[in-house]
Amino acid sequence: MLSVGLNVVPFVWAASPAAAELETIVVDWMGKLIGLPHLLLFSGGGGGVLQGSTCEAVVCTLAAARDRALAKLGHENIMKLVVYASDQTHVTFQKGARLVGIPPSNFRVIQTSASSGYGLTADAIRAAVDREVANGLVPLYLCATVGTTGLGAVDPVRGLGEEAQRHGMWLHVDAAYAGSAAICPEFEGYLDGAELADSVSMNPHKWFLTNMDCCCLWVASPATFTAALSTDPEYLKNVGTNGTGKPAAIDYKDWQISLTRRFRAIKLWVVLRRYGAIGLRGYIRRHVAAAKRFERMVAEDERFEVVVPRKFLLVCFRLRELLAAVNSSGRAFITHFVVDGKFVIRLAVAGAMTEMQHVMDVWALLQGKAEEVLRRHQLSRALIVQLRGTARLHVHADIILFIILVLGINSTFVPV
Amino acid sequence: MLSVGLNVVPFVWAASPAAAELETIVVDWMGKLIGLPHLLLFSGGGGGVLQGSTCEAVVCTLAAARDRALAKLGHENIMKLVVYASDQTHVTFQKGARLVGIPPSNFRVIQTSASSGYGLTADAIRAAVDREVANGLVPLYLCATVGTTGLGAVDPVRGLGEEAQRHGMWLHVDAAYAGSAAICPEFEGYLDGAELADSVSMNPHKWFLTNMDCCCLWVASPATFTAALSTDPEYLKNVGTNGTGKPAAIDYKDWQISLTRRFRAIKLWVVLRRYGAIGLRGYIRRHVAAAKRFERMVAEDERFEVVVPRKFLLVCFRLRELLAAVNSSGRAFITHFVVDGKFVIRLAVAGAMTEMQHVMDVWALLQGKAEEVLRRHQLSRALIVQLRGTARLHVHADIILFIILVLGINSTFVPV
Repeated sequence: MLSVGLNVVPFVWAASPAAAELETIVVDWMGKLIGLPHLLLFSGGGGGVLQGSTCEAVVCTLAAARDRALAKLGHENIMKLVVYASDQTHVTFQKGARLVGIPPSNFRVIQTSASSGYGLTADAIRAAVDREVANGLVPLYLCATVGTTGLGAVDPVRGLGEEAQRHGMWLHVDAAYAGSAAICPEFEGYLDGAELADSVSMNPHKWFLTNMDCCCLWVASPATFTAALSTDPEYLKNVGTNGTGKPAAIDYKDWQISLTRRFRAIKLWVVLRRYGAIGLRGYIRRHVAAAKRFERMVAEDERFEVVVPRKFLLVCFRLRELLAAVNSSGRAFITHFVVDGKFVIRLAVAGAMTEMQHVMDVWALLQGKAEEVLRRHQLSRALIVQLRGTARLHVHADIILFIILVLGINSTFVPV
Repeated sequence: MLSVGLNVVPFVWAASPAAAELETIVVDWMGKLIGLPHLLLFSGGGGGVLQGSTCEAVVCTLAAARDRALAKLGHENIMKLVVYASDQTHVTFQKGARLVGIPPSNFRVIQTSASSGYGLTADAIRAAVDREVANGLVPLYLCATVGTTGLGAVDPVRGLGEEAQRHGMWLHVDAAYAGSAAICPEFEGYLDGAELADSVSMNPHKWFLTNMDCCCLWVASPATFTAALSTDPEYLKNVGTNGTGKPAAIDYKDWQISLTRRFRAIKLWVVLRRYGAIGLRGYIRRHVAAAKRFERMVAEDERFEVVVPRKFLLVCFRLRELLAAVNSSGRAFITHFVVDGKFVIRLAVAGAMTEMQHVMDVWALLQGKAEEVLRRHQLSRALIVQLRGTARLHVHADIILFIILVLGINSTFVPV
């Protein structure tokens, strides 16, 4: 609300020096807090920006990677550029690649499997890239996700980074939600290898108590990044530029798609100052503890099954028709996912005001609805056990479910 | 603040049906209010969306135009696509074209001149397009601006639309600031010919009492538009889709770059309900009257000269060194422009709380500073008159100035 009330538009440094300076400071703070390597921070030659969403960050980094490659190859070789992601990577990368003019047929979706916890392995990337290079194509961009949307899977950043370096690919690390966990030492390891990345993004508006919209994007080379995004018309030359065409200070318009921008730094600054590192770690750990407890309760109930081991706040479990039954109760709103052809519901404990009690209430609701669903289908307990046994055989009728329950934050959520 | 407090994220219809439905309603209201043709409204087969900025709207429409063309030509012909704009068109079109992968060398900047009031003429476009087509290139996209950033110039929408139709080009009408004026019948004519446009945009956050960020974008063919922007991953299939892949309701994520979005409709709804058409027309007319009076005062002072006739709220006049002198007073913040090699300051009367008195105060400040500047240079009145006389000869020392004074709205503005 502070951001809105002040209604600051810090597109060039001169339009609001305080906003621009504050932004450079909070992105460095945030980077240090999640243990990013120095070279991604302003203090280490890199730098960061607050954008509206990962989608914007993806478009900007893809455009920078494309222009870096085409500067060597010539624009006509845009047809040769290939972008790599896994089948768990957020769909925004596919949309982003298309937006920046990469031929849709050059977007490679690498299959993942349960054996790697649905993470994208370096071996799989190496095989795919070698094949493309042999065919005369140019590997452009690789996305490593820390905490995928569907399952909370983690791609090995270091392994993928080494593959990216071998071929001069741009490595982007998308830690949109799970990046917040890295403020706790026990989760920092998931970002190991980030010094090999050209860019890293995480969204404080997801699991960091910050209001929509706020996405941190760090880049190792601000010059390469802004080369794809800068403009210098007469009406934007101002006291912030030193007259040589090179800005004397950061003009954030050259760090994003739009000229117009919001004063997002004040939001993140308030969060960081209000809660502090210790408070925020406690917040993250409370959610993880609640998710852990939910996972244990699911595992202990024979009608349910935990499908993918929990890493952060996302619990994966299954029982058919539960989604519709829970949603129609009006007491919680949940969404689904499909993995290996199996329908899944997802539970994520991430609301600003979510307490252990809410998780207990949701579990009671789920158990009650499970009973109802099973009764309606006149299935005996014996049959249910059998159903669970055949799950891995991909029987059509066997539906797996995970839940996402953005308690308190999601607008359509009705408190349980 | 309502938008922030509610913290609604209406990316799919189901995430917030109220927000999605309200958005379709307010963009239709807004379209009717500025006299857009029926075919750009939902009620006429077109439709609108609230985006964050013109820059986003430009990227989305360019991508849609590109994909429409490449669907026929094949992606490899991206090298042949040409985008047209004038030297007064906002630089975001150049950035947008580059972002969506159009070769930078295929962006054509057509010169304008004082003879057309710095508007882009249909003749100039016809000549340029015919030349390109003869060379085997494909005209893709043409931007017509109603109220250019620098000078407030107006391109003839109908004339440019006819040229666009002749070659199957996408016509975008950028009425970012001046579109607001079209709610008054006396300004509606500037949008004449909009039925030939594929898309039209205007920003209520500029001159329509709406807080940052809020940009209306209307398209004639939602299907063509969303084809370039839609995604359909499993975790976004929800109660808002009817299971056939075709959404039962509008999923606004397919109408913009990002998945994440803000509840902007509530802001525009509040403005429209609070002020009403009559109130808003009064607001626009008060600013225009103040700008008109300022223009007259400038014209009557022999030390100043009005350079380009005022159309809406922007007054153009000149006197060297005035920019620095006024800005360093701390009582107003102004920016500049260059036209035909001449340095210019711009005055725009657009603040929510700007009254005639503020304009009078600014004029007094300008007169005072003009005196100071002239005294400092020990220039006699005779010499000043001579300087004015040589202005049109493009003498290097002759600097023309306009002012932009976003009274009250601009964060760095100190009330006079």
